Amino acid sequence: MVQSEKQVEAGHAPKMGARRIYEALKNQILNGVYSAGSQLPSSRSLAIELHVSRTTVTVAYEQLAAEGFVELRQGARPRVTALQLGQRLRETNASREACGPLSAYGERLRALPPWLDYLPNTLAVDFRYGDLAPSDFPALAWKRAVNSVITQRPGRLAYEDPRGSRRLRQALQGYLWRARTLQCDLEQIIVVNGSQQGLDLCARLLLDEDSAFVMENPGYRMARQIFSSTGACTIDVDVDADGLQTAELANVNARMAYVTPSHQFPLGGVMPISRRHQLVNWALDRDAYVVEDDYDSEYRYDISPVPPLQSLGDGRNVIYLGTISKTLSPMMRIGYLVVPKHLQDVFATSKQLTDRHTSMTEQEALASLIECGAYESHVRRARRLNRERREMLLNALQATFGRRITVEGADAGLHVVVWFNELSASAEAVLMKAAYELGVGIYGISSLYAPLDTSRSERQPLGLVMGYSALSPKHIQKGVQLLAEAFSAVTDPG
Amino acid sequence: MVQSEKQVEAGHAPKMGARRIYEALKNQILNGVYSAGSQLPSSRSLAIELHVSRTTVTVAYEQLAAEGFVELRQGARPRVTALQLGQRLRETNASREACGPLSAYGERLRALPPWLDYLPNTLAVDFRYGDLAPSDFPALAWKRAVNSVITQRPGRLAYEDPRGSRRLRQALQGYLWRARTLQCDLEQIIVVNGSQQGLDLCARLLLDEDSAFVMENPGYRMARQIFSSTGACTIDVDVDADGLQTAELANVNARMAYVTPSHQFPLGGVMPISRRHQLVNWALDRDAYVVEDDYDSEYRYDISPVPPLQSLGDGRNVIYLGTISKTLSPMMRIGYLVVPKHLQDVFATSKQLTDRHTSMTEQEALASLIECGAYESHVRRARRLNRERREMLLNALQATFGRRITVEGADAGLHVVVWFNELSASAEAVLMKAAYELGVGIYGISSLYAPLDTSRSERQPLGLVMGYSALSPKHIQKGVQLLAEAFSAVTDPG
Repeated sequence: MVQSEKQVEAGHAPKMGARRIYEALKNQILNGVYSAGSQLPSSRSLAIELHVSRTTVTVAYEQLAAEGFVELRQGARPRVTALQLGQRLRETNASREACGPLSAYGERLRALPPWLDYLPNTLAVDFRYGDLAPSDFPALAWKRAVNSVITQRPGRLAYEDPRGSRRLRQALQGYLWRARTLQCDLEQIIVVNGSQQGLDLCARLLLDEDSAFVMENPGYRMARQIFSSTGACTIDVDVDADGLQTAELANVNARMAYVTPSHQFPLGGVMPISRRHQLVNWALDRDAYVVEDDYDSEYRYDISPVPPLQSLGDGRNVIYLGTISKTLSPMMRIGYLVVPKHLQDVFATSKQLTDRHTSMTEQEALASLIECGAYESHVRRARRLNRERREMLLNALQATFGRRITVEGADAGLHVVVWFNELSASAEAVLMKAAYELGVGIYGISSLYAPLDTSRSERQPLGLVMGYSALSPKHIQKGVQLLAEAFSAVTDPG
Repeated sequence: MVQSEKQVEAGHAPKMGARRIYEALKNQILNGVYSAGSQLPSSRSLAIELHVSRTTVTVAYEQLAAEGFVELRQGARPRVTALQLGQRLRETNASREACGPLSAYGERLRALPPWLDYLPNTLAVDFRYGDLAPSDFPALAWKRAVNSVITQRPGRLAYEDPRGSRRLRQALQGYLWRARTLQCDLEQIIVVNGSQQGLDLCARLLLDEDSAFVMENPGYRMARQIFSSTGACTIDVDVDADGLQTAELANVNARMAYVTPSHQFPLGGVMPISRRHQLVNWALDRDAYVVEDDYDSEYRYDISPVPPLQSLGDGRNVIYLGTISKTLSPMMRIGYLVVPKHLQDVFATSKQLTDRHTSMTEQEALASLIECGAYESHVRRARRLNRERREMLLNALQATFGRRITVEGADAGLHVVVWFNELSASAEAVLMKAAYELGVGIYGISSLYAPLDTSRSERQPLGLVMGYSALSPKHIQKGVQLLAEAFSAVTDPG
């Protein structure tokens, strides 16, 4: 407190003396010590009484006047303003929990658990998907890029193009062509705060309360949640080793389908060309859109990344979504949309109204990283490191569990799905808890399935989504070993 | 193109040779040269034919197989997959303008002009409000802060607390107390991407299509737009020299009121205590919320900043909104909400679903700037510089236009409103165009009034909102001089 007051004093006028006087008089007026119409002491007499300069009192009086507590009159004492009846602040005895109604969106969010995913991490080994190892981060190149941007001084500091830095969009345009054979105009690219904001813009622009959308089952939970938050109805379509079962769409009417065709999350399938055509045709027939989340195509270990849906046909009903959360850092919030030409203006307007634009420094630094080739050489290095982690994990799992597990989706990405053939999905919470107590974080696949798909836990074996990209080889081995202990504790409690 | 291909080659497998083969075969399959069920050459014979290694062909074949174009069979030639009828991509002759339906929100946005505010700046002098001078920016301190953050290596790179960096919220908590006498818990603070995102979260959480909200008239246009984008009905309440005319609220039912009580935008009034009580009581009676946009309280030149509405009563129906767009830079997207306790979870969930969290580096750098006192000393310096700019502008306006103008709202902020007593508001576009042709950007106040308030242009004189914070004293003088020329051209075209 003393500290704070000192800092206030170091601040601007009125000085603490005036502020104390102001506070005291304000409280007296609010508590009725000085009633409406009554006069305060003259500044001269109050100054003498309080042993302060007259200026100090005048500063306090001016502040009170500016806030409407008193009226100052030339040559006369300040008069307390008549606070009209009903203009005093009502006492509220209502509980602090009391709360006005929220919007339908707000009420839907209130029904969700308040802390999605976020937990401070105190585990010895954590297989949480999506985290990256800080040692992979190209710290030096990034620092150089950021400093080169900070030292540039623009003509003026002003709001920028809502679609993002032109320099970054140019760099991305080239990158998308080189890495993904994706061709687009600069105007089709919208830089967003990570792919989550890209999904949110799609949700808001495409879905109403009476709409429906197609969701992969299992699929990315935060996509499901943001689309559901609009009130639109979820149509869950099952996924197999080839991704979304597009044949199931024949009788489905929906305004949008969310898919991860290059590497289905979480099961890992690559959608074959026939399903791709079926999906895009389904959307064309219904004037619907396909939202293509290309969240980790940088990490294919066997084949080249598969060309995106966006490059099929004229792409007029495909919205492509990419991110740097898996290549650089999830803490750095940059993603990008490639939208059909006829939607580019409305997406730009939505982005502008939502938050003006994404912060400029990191956009420009990323542009500089891509321009000089450092981004792509970093991606190659990260791919190599994660390939090694994947080998380590697969070997450790194989050596430890052998035929008791089946691994799915290991060709790509930063996670694998591990099915425990002998355990039922209903044992998921028990295994997770046992592992947690041994200091290892594991994550069941259940939460990625449609919430109402309850019979699944009896039909299916227990599955884990195991991310490895934040772990050192040593930690991976340690983690699998601890997982084996947890597994034994669950299967053989004796 | 050549460049791009080279860069692809420098990328990862398959090398360009394989990629060319893959592309050629894919096109032949898609165009029916190889029909479903037919066989491709063996990898050995194709390799000989094309003078490439057999591995190159194998890579191409594996890519085709992964994408579902062919099936590979041990010891046999690859067979083209049967693309079922209707699974080829449909030809679309539809115009590129054709487009599926958007959501109601999307259609409302489409009705707005696509490029709100953003224009590359080529003017000699631009009085656009909200821009800052790069020379004011504390470049050295910021660079030091950013570098101190970049060089810290966290335990792992992972999504962060959606409410923002704990360190920044702690720094803001102290700052808000020192600068604004605002007291709150850490959990009530939500870091957002500038105040626009704060407004957007309020809009989504509080308003439905059948809701109503109170808007200052004139008021901040992008607040009006984001609230209207929900479909909620706008209730425009006039503003006078004391801010929102709260007496007008008596019979108004609305779910939310948006106000700028510390410095009304654009007219500059400070809301007196009686109106503050009336406003908060109005909201308490209706279970409504007050959104208090405290966008520029750092810049008061006469009195101390007025304590926020949030600190009246228990603040349970006030949402406070602050920003660094006016103190550091609008290009750096950081703002903060202080929300009532009973709303802190739902705001955090909404922020998380919307974009996970605000980018971490700039949050932590800002925290470090506040912690070491550099932020507040920068604010003092910026206040001094802008006070000088303000004097310069007021003097230049006075010397040039004398009694032909009336200046309003010059006690605070980074803009003044200038009324041209002899010109009608209907001449606004003409004056703006005349000024633009002379290389000076001026901005009429009309766009800040309720859009349907058409009789205003006959009743009122012409008003300009003149921002000065991006201009040097020399430019301010030059700008006023050019404005005088434009004024003469309009009033005395001969």
